[in-house]
Amino acid sequence: MSSNQNQAVVGIIGGGLVGALNAIYFAQRGWKVELYELRPDMRLPIHRESRRGKSINLALSERGLSALRNTGLDLEKKILEASVPMKARMVHIGKNGTQMSQAYDVNGQHINAVDRARLNELLLDEAESLANVTVHFEHRLVTADFDNNTMNFMTSEGEKTYKNDLIIGADGAYSRTRAQMMRNMRMDYSQEYIDTGYCELLMPPAKDPDGKPKFALDPNHLHIWPRHTFMLIALPNPDYSFTCTLFMPFQMFEDIETEDRLMTFFSENFNDSIPLIGEAALKSDFFANPRGSLVTVKASPHNYKNKSVIIGDAAHAMVPFYGQGMNCGFQDVEVLHQIMDQHHIEPQTNKEGVIIGLEKALNEYSKTRVKDAHAICDLAMYNYYEMRHAVTSYRFLARKKLEGAIHSVFPRLIIPLYTMVSFSTLPYSKAIDRWHRQTHWLNFAMISTTVVVASAAAFVGFSKRYHFMSSISSAIDSIRKYKK
Amino acid sequence: MSSNQNQAVVGIIGGGLVGALNAIYFAQRGWKVELYELRPDMRLPIHRESRRGKSINLALSERGLSALRNTGLDLEKKILEASVPMKARMVHIGKNGTQMSQAYDVNGQHINAVDRARLNELLLDEAESLANVTVHFEHRLVTADFDNNTMNFMTSEGEKTYKNDLIIGADGAYSRTRAQMMRNMRMDYSQEYIDTGYCELLMPPAKDPDGKPKFALDPNHLHIWPRHTFMLIALPNPDYSFTCTLFMPFQMFEDIETEDRLMTFFSENFNDSIPLIGEAALKSDFFANPRGSLVTVKASPHNYKNKSVIIGDAAHAMVPFYGQGMNCGFQDVEVLHQIMDQHHIEPQTNKEGVIIGLEKALNEYSKTRVKDAHAICDLAMYNYYEMRHAVTSYRFLARKKLEGAIHSVFPRLIIPLYTMVSFSTLPYSKAIDRWHRQTHWLNFAMISTTVVVASAAAFVGFSKRYHFMSSISSAIDSIRKYKK
Repeated sequence: MSSNQNQAVVGIIGGGLVGALNAIYFAQRGWKVELYELRPDMRLPIHRESRRGKSINLALSERGLSALRNTGLDLEKKILEASVPMKARMVHIGKNGTQMSQAYDVNGQHINAVDRARLNELLLDEAESLANVTVHFEHRLVTADFDNNTMNFMTSEGEKTYKNDLIIGADGAYSRTRAQMMRNMRMDYSQEYIDTGYCELLMPPAKDPDGKPKFALDPNHLHIWPRHTFMLIALPNPDYSFTCTLFMPFQMFEDIETEDRLMTFFSENFNDSIPLIGEAALKSDFFANPRGSLVTVKASPHNYKNKSVIIGDAAHAMVPFYGQGMNCGFQDVEVLHQIMDQHHIEPQTNKEGVIIGLEKALNEYSKTRVKDAHAICDLAMYNYYEMRHAVTSYRFLARKKLEGAIHSVFPRLIIPLYTMVSFSTLPYSKAIDRWHRQTHWLNFAMISTTVVVASAAAFVGFSKRYHFMSSISSAIDSIRKYKK
Repeated sequence: MSSNQNQAVVGIIGGGLVGALNAIYFAQRGWKVELYELRPDMRLPIHRESRRGKSINLALSERGLSALRNTGLDLEKKILEASVPMKARMVHIGKNGTQMSQAYDVNGQHINAVDRARLNELLLDEAESLANVTVHFEHRLVTADFDNNTMNFMTSEGEKTYKNDLIIGADGAYSRTRAQMMRNMRMDYSQEYIDTGYCELLMPPAKDPDGKPKFALDPNHLHIWPRHTFMLIALPNPDYSFTCTLFMPFQMFEDIETEDRLMTFFSENFNDSIPLIGEAALKSDFFANPRGSLVTVKASPHNYKNKSVIIGDAAHAMVPFYGQGMNCGFQDVEVLHQIMDQHHIEPQTNKEGVIIGLEKALNEYSKTRVKDAHAICDLAMYNYYEMRHAVTSYRFLARKKLEGAIHSVFPRLIIPLYTMVSFSTLPYSKAIDRWHRQTHWLNFAMISTTVVVASAAAFVGFSKRYHFMSSISSAIDSIRKYKK
């Protein structure tokens, strides 16, 4: 570094999962990192306590793992040690609690249930252990003047102003950084809520005959009770508990006003879960825990010149039904730094205080990432439909089976969408393009299969006439759909 | 009013056109009105001066006039006296300045060029003349706690808190009220910019042989120079000047870096306007005046319970190409009060401090108005295309002529879209529905007409073979389009 150069400084707003990971990436490329977090340090015992009962688990899959792996630290290993692998969905059908396991991947790949808070703590620990990272807690961004690189914060010690070469907003769906950027530039923006809200319920560990704790349900599954307009899901925690989340229209939450109504509703719809959650816990959790709302946020572009960029939920909040919110945010970080590498961005400013090439790199990041963000936001909405309905439909299951069968024989010809999204790092928009092309061929294959099966059934006089007619009518139905 | 009742108080954020008109409506229905305006009083001489050169004229049409008329005051008359009627578009075609007049309405109805500032002053004067209206200038909304009916403002005398029974946001496209509401509720929201910016240029009065001022162009027209990717328009002012607005992509603005480039650009595209604006004025205006940006804002719903509602640009900013921004905002006020009338909303609170029926009325307002707001936002974007392109296309003109011809013979069968939007108060969404139905029939009529004309031309051996062939090909083309 010549005397005219200074070490580049990045200010990251938000010390959540994505902000903390980004701090590690920037520190490793030689920048000075200032990380500003609104809340107090979550790792302090007093704040740990206040978090109790609010833990949410998340599904970590390949995109997230890849970003952790590429730090070069042993983050991936540490995190996987504290996670529970989920290799399939377990669908709870009907009142009697019949369970049906649906593997996520024909090759047995799995996603991982991780504890959000634990992951966050780990990332903060790693970030703080690096010499060039400073974490400022209890810093609430008030205003940002991007053209002059300055930010004003409200802190526990009054107002403070900081000046950083680049400002990154990793401050979530209701991002203040984004709001400040919108005052400066022509940002296209949309937020759209769904009518569905959610409420968390805890399913405590069961006990084995020796009195040792064990999981109340098969732990290597993401459990789903799909009920068309609403659903219950459960993800395992390392402490043998499950975090259950009930998703349903706000109006239905409002209609369940009494404990009696709640119990009637649960016994009619999720009867097998009642003894596992426990009646008393169910009642107290349901009425005490807050109702969350679910929003899709899209923004374009993601950057303002060479001054600022938004990542994670700040750039693309999505409904949680593909389990990609965190994974997408982690991939943002990886992609951002890949592009900065390609543009040979040095960790210093020139004598005019400018980081050479940064504007071009951020423009490219925005150009490539906006379309992937939009794609996964839309896909998450689609999966909202799939999880509530399609997982119980025979057509859906047949399609899944066929996709999986072809994939295991010709692994490059047909790749199931879920596999591309969860077990690859292929850009989301490319995964969806490929999926559309595959769908064309699969429909054709399904018609052929149906016709062959129907003919075979007819030929061997497969039991009753009823079955034959139903096969034929299903074949005709498939052909009609395909012709559309 | 019994001793348990209190006069209802409405707080209106924003003393612009829509806010001031709404203050008059609420005052007339017996409410106490507090109007909070961010800026100082625009009517004070010192602020009048600073506004010089920033006047923008607007096109006032039936929806706006209806809302003014229904105040029962003589607002409509006062405003029309200070406006210039525009009965047609004057399209300036090609380099040589050929002009073509296109009437807005076959029955000779006109729209009115009004000065925004003058109209605003008049509305503020009227509002302040009412005993139950108080106007607070230099009040910047900081936060609002809708559930408790309170607002905090930053004023020239420091922070102030007010408590009103109903809070109305009439504070424009970048509404602070809306932003505060979005923190409280699940509001779907989108903002979308177009790549086109605008710059205002003044065309001063010309002089007649006696040295008296006169209009440099025909004053009873809205002048347009459509150039496909960009355009110039000019609206008359009562002082014989025209306000010209150049709409073009931001990139083109940036590319015109020198006075020479500007003059080349103008002589190639708007040659006839140069002597009328004046070369020196053109150069100074173009480089000194700011570039405006154009945004479409949609929000849903428009209200939060019985606590607040957004109207005007705060609820639905639109691009200015249908001249409906202000008209739609004025109609918001009229519709809001019609619905409050239908719900018999009394101007007082009950002993619990609640205004009976208000929540239901505001929910209904939102339900009906959201779809009309979305409809006119979309239509304004469509007209952006039409103004730059279609006004020079022969198909477009033929369709207009046919529409007009049928309308004059059967005034209830076919009503041109422009007539429904600008010369009626039919809800926007209904106007568009009707237009879609009409289009079906008109396409059929156009094919018939084309076929008849082509046959007649062939029959009478109408001059050259070329003409015949072109008629036939146009007929075939129409049939093709219709079949699509």
